[in-house]
Amino acid sequence: MMKIKFKSIGEIYSPYDEKAGIPIQPVSALGIHGCIVLKDKFIKGIKDLDGFSHIILIYYLHKTKKSSLRVKPFLDTNKRGIFSTRSPARPNHIGLSVVRLIGIQDNHLIIENVDILNGTPLLDIKPFIPEIDCYDSDYKIGWFTSKVEKLNEMRSDGRFK
Amino acid sequence: MMKIKFKSIGEIYSPYDEKAGIPIQPVSALGIHGCIVLKDKFIKGIKDLDGFSHIILIYYLHKTKKSSLRVKPFLDTNKRGIFSTRSPARPNHIGLSVVRLIGIQDNHLIIENVDILNGTPLLDIKPFIPEIDCYDSDYKIGWFTSKVEKLNEMRSDGRFK
Repeated sequence: MMKIKFKSIGEIYSPYDEKAGIPIQPVSALGIHGCIVLKDKFIKGIKDLDGFSHIILIYYLHKTKKSSLRVKPFLDTNKRGIFSTRSPARPNHIGLSVVRLIGIQDNHLIIENVDILNGTPLLDIKPFIPEIDCYDSDYKIGWFTSKVEKLNEMRSDGRFK
Repeated sequence: MMKIKFKSIGEIYSPYDEKAGIPIQPVSALGIHGCIVLKDKFIKGIKDLDGFSHIILIYYLHKTKKSSLRVKPFLDTNKRGIFSTRSPARPNHIGLSVVRLIGIQDNHLIIENVDILNGTPLLDIKPFIPEIDCYDSDYKIGWFTSKVEKLNEMRSDGRFK
């Protein structure tokens, strides 16, 4: 099986030191601030980023040790296929969050709506562009349909080790 | 520097064998079909995915060898910081596309709006949920603002080696 190697480009700092109690998505973390500390060698790469209000963070879920193909998500009582959920217990522990970019100073990026564990290694930053990332007009969201209104209040109970 | 290892969970097949000529985003690839062939061992993980109309693919840009912190994107004539672009020449060669899910048969996922090179190793599938991935009402998109209308017609010229 092909092994693919990435490196951390910086770290994400947040108020959440423990998995239990963490908001499960940015939309459950409105107003929660965090900070990205980019490694100095990548500073040239954030030129022009300050014009964007939202950025996509791709990161390594470094505190998740297990993978399961069937999981009971926070929002549901049924076991679901892992790829139909946003659970961290995926075959590759890759996290994705769209956060607000509040400001940049040197290699520090202040961000808001942070649902990410403190100290998380960052793999990539992409500008969020609704015309690219949300380009269709009609979406079906499967088992989430009846659960989506609970998103705002949901917090992790730390079930995904 | 922390090394992070992932494995391919399958491959993405598309009509694009060469980087030159490939649509630069799913919105430039409307109606283009492709197929994910998931490794058999992950089949249990796609249960319930068929209820979703769109999925987020995270993949390894395996044919991109170089990284640059300043790049001239396809849509622009100025050099931009790599993290303010969607260019493949990033420090970690991670690609992200939101595609339509047309159907699933065994370990085959038929997808549409495919802007991905043939044979690309897939790292993760997440269900696309507008309430999670596009939850705000007001977005600023920096240097893209005046370029975004050109998206539909844009094709790669293969500049990112």
